[in-house]
Parts: sequence; C-alpha cells; structure tokens
Amino acid sequence: MAYDVCIIGTGPAGLSAAINFKLHNKSVIWFGSKDMSLKVQKSEKIANYPGVPYVSGPELNAKFMAQAEEMGLEITDKMVTNISAMRKGFMVLADNEIYEAKALLLAIGAFTAKPLPGEAEYLGRGVSYCATCDGFLYKGKTIAVHCGAEKYEHEVEYLAEIADKVYLSSGYKGSKVDLPNVEHLPAQLGKVNGEMKVTGIETVKGEAHDVDGVFILRTAVAPTTLMNGLEMDGPHIIVDREMKTNKKGCYAAGDCTGRPYQITKAVGEGNIAAHSIIEYLAELDKQ
Amino acid sequence: MAYDVCIIGTGPAGLSAAINFKLHNKSVIWFGSKDMSLKVQKSEKIANYPGVPYVSGPELNAKFMAQAEEMGLEITDKMVTNISAMRKGFMVLADNEIYEAKALLLAIGAFTAKPLPGEAEYLGRGVSYCATCDGFLYKGKTIAVHCGAEKYEHEVEYLAEIADKVYLSSGYKGSKVDLPNVEHLPAQLGKVNGEMKVTGIETVKGEAHDVDGVFILRTAVAPTTLMNGLEMDGPHIIVDREMKTNKKGCYAAGDCTGRPYQITKAVGEGNIAAHSIIEYLAELDKQ
Repeated sequence: MAYDVCIIGTGPAGLSAAINFKLHNKSVIWFGSKDMSLKVQKSEKIANYPGVPYVSGPELNAKFMAQAEEMGLEITDKMVTNISAMRKGFMVLADNEIYEAKALLLAIGAFTAKPLPGEAEYLGRGVSYCATCDGFLYKGKTIAVHCGAEKYEHEVEYLAEIADKVYLSSGYKGSKVDLPNVEHLPAQLGKVNGEMKVTGIETVKGEAHDVDGVFILRTAVAPTTLMNGLEMDGPHIIVDREMKTNKKGCYAAGDCTGRPYQITKAVGEGNIAAHSIIEYLAELDKQ
Repeated sequence: MAYDVCIIGTGPAGLSAAINFKLHNKSVIWFGSKDMSLKVQKSEKIANYPGVPYVSGPELNAKFMAQAEEMGLEITDKMVTNISAMRKGFMVLADNEIYEAKALLLAIGAFTAKPLPGEAEYLGRGVSYCATCDGFLYKGKTIAVHCGAEKYEHEVEYLAEIADKVYLSSGYKGSKVDLPNVEHLPAQLGKVNGEMKVTGIETVKGEAHDVDGVFILRTAVAPTTLMNGLEMDGPHIIVDREMKTNKKGCYAAGDCTGRPYQITKAVGEGNIAAHSIIEYLAELDKQ
C-alpha cells in the first residue's frame, strides 16, 4: 500500500511539514536522521527564530527532536538514492528497499557538492551511494571510497570487511579509519574513470588507481541524481509559491529551493508545502 | 531623513522581518500594535509551530512580545492610512504624520472586509479611517461611525466629544459605548452616500440618515486603498518567491500574500522578505 506522502529530509522544513501531515491524519514515510538536522545542530547561535530567542543550534535541534517524538512522528533512518515518478505517485528507493507514495516532499537541504567527473555517468555501473546496498558485489575486489562525513566511517569499515583493498578519500580532517587493507589517499577523490563500467579513479592531484567500484558516501545526493528531469536553477530546485516543482505531486521546501538558507524560511516553506500537498491529495481522492 | 525600511504590521511576519533588520543594523519604522498580533492572541491552541510545541495563542504572542522587547525593537502604535510610491522610496501617512522609507514591507494580515459602496469614492471627502486625524473637522456636526473592534471604542467616545450627533454601527456584539449623543444603529453600516462629498449613510437594512462625515474604524485597510496600483489576486497581494510585489521596493509577507493563513508560513515569509529587502538596500547604495 502506498503512503500518502514521502518526506525526504529531517531538517526544519521536513519537520514543519511532518507536523502538519500528522495533524491531518496523512500516512507518512519520513526519511532522514534520528538526529534531525546536522546543520541546525552545528549552528552556534540562532538569533532570528521567532518565538525562540537567542537559542544555540543544539538546543533548537533538541526542541525539534522532542517535538517530533511528542507528536509520535516516526523517522526512517535510510538513505534515499533514487526516485521514479510513476503514473500515479512515486517509487522511492531507500537502502535498496522500495517505498511507494502518492506525493513527495523534497526537504533535502542545500546541495553544494559538485558531482565528480564520471560520477553520474557510471552510477549503477560501479559507482554506488550505498554501502549496505551494493557492498556485497565487491567481495575480494578493489574499491575506492569517498567518505564525506565522520558518521559514514562505520560504512567504510563494513566495506573494508568485504573488499580486498580499499582506497579511502575523506571529505574532512582526522579520519579514524585504521585498517590494514585501507589505504588513505593523500588527496581527495577527483574523478571516476571507466569504459562501460568503472575501471579506476584519480585523486584531485592526479594519482591514479585501478578499482572495480567506487562508493561515494555523502550526506546529500544531487536532486537531479535523485530524480530525473527535476527542473533546477543552478543548485536549487525550482518551485512556485505553493512549493510545487515541475513534477506533478512533487514539492520541495527549505534550503534546497534556494536562499536565504534560514531555519525560519525552511519551516515556513515546509508549512506551505504540507498544505499544498494536503490539497493535492484531496484532489487525487476525487479522481 | 528616510528610514531604511518601513514595516507595516506586528504579526508574526512583521516580527520575523524586524528581527532580521535589527541584526543587520537597518533603521526601521515599525507600525502596528504593542500587543503585537490580535490573531495570534485569539488562537486557542497552536500545534504546528516548530520549536514551540502545543502552545496557546496568548503564550506564543507573549513570547513574540518578549522577544521584540529583548531585541530592542520599537513599535509605533499608529494606523497607516496611505502610502505613496515616490521616485526613491515611499511616503507613509500614519495618524496624519508623514514618514519616509527607502523600502516597504506590508505585513498587514488577511484583509477580509469588503469596502462599502461609496467608501473608496468619498475617502478624504467625508470618509476617514482615523478619528484623531480628522475628528476636529466635525465639531458640532453629525457623523456616522463604524466601529470594527472593541479597541476602537475610545475613538468613538473621542468623536462623540467633538460631534453633535453620532450614528454608531458596531462590527461586533456588545458595544460598551453609552453616551447621550450616540445612537446605536439597529443594523450595520451598508453604504456611504454623497454628491462630491459625503451627504449621508444607509444601513444594510436600508435605514438612511443625513451625515457630514463617516468614520470607518477597522483593524485593516484594504491593501489597494493603502497603496494605489498594488497588484492583487482577489484579496491577496501578488508576490514572487522573493516576496516582491509589482511596486519597486515594496515587499509583502504573511497572511496578506495568501493562504495558508499560518503563523509558521508568516514567519518564513517575513524572513525571506527581510533578506530580499536587505539585498535591495545594498543595490540602492551602489547607485
């Protein structure tokens, strides 16, 4: 059975929408992190959130978490890697499981990372975003892994148990991964090479290695990688005043729709998007 | 000297913007009520404001007031009755005083009252929105007053001190005005009659009286009455994703821009509008 709505993202926009869906008794699958928003969490001081004066990021994020729990909102801690628009609704792939929903809300945050040369080209042909989904394919093989955040280190370690050899590029300082078959690259991953499928990688400094597969573990996937044909303005998803994207039934809210990158803006857009989706679902029911 | 920004409205949208202007050191004249938002105040329970779970209207409004005070935001408790766009900036008429500002934010709430037949036609020719501004013109004369909310009763009493006779129509039940020269009309004010200037009124039930002037005391003035040529979609001010109206330098946020009529939406739009205006002012400075 399809959910009414699938929300992707547990930042302020996703939370704001999720609260409204709950109050309107919509069935929701909400993908994200139990820790809600890393970006809010890492904010030092927030001075411009109406109703909560001068609050620290961790305090505000804790308030958001408590509110989600109090309202019985459930978060599914899985990484969404692909969305297909169907004739009615959407098929969402998260950690290799398929979920269906009638409407979709992208609250996926600002996407700043540029895809690597070759990344989109070889996605599904040696490039993967999900260790638990595709790791088993590389038993005894050689792989490269780009680890974009500390929280993915356990996925690197998981991959190192399967693969024979891992070339590791880290998107932050002080990686704690220390295993005999993991070689820390002296520069970040810069390029994916291939011929029909992945054959190797190069670092940004030009050091090359032959590999059978490349895992790119980032907090965010580019919106257009997530869903084909989504209309963008640079890195931002184009929406109208109702937070509607160019894809029927697909809405977006928060940083992913553009500046200002502000918590207050994000909750406002999440609220608008939720109300638009509730109207959209009512229209669907009439058909 | 002109202010950087004039904000009209002390609801959630106005507050959200005012906070951001303060943080960016903009000079602001902020018109509205020291009690902030009557609409928030009268909300029974608000369940969908992220960060402040299950809060009563009075509690949330008190939080807003405390935050405004803590940040040193000043509210000017005057009624804005007219705005003129000038070559550079705006001229704002509030209780018969003129204020100038480079940019304008309309956060005036949802406007639901329809103007009366004759109201716009005779505005300034016998019809007035402001007792303290125009009351003195009716010394010893006969006037009609429409009192839209209890808080304007002291203005009715003020007018009754000046005028010889007052026909009073009340937009709510239980008017406490009790004066010998005030006659409570049995039905609401329905029409303003005139010939070049006001000559009389009719109630919605057709009762007619000759009067020299008509005071219409409502919480809100229609946006187009406030500012000529503002582009509307029915009762809502048309804005783009940056909260820009069709008038250069004029932005709008909150309920006045359309549904959903939600506090969360309003603070989000106030935030966006403030950031757009800050950019607009930076552009002006370059010219």
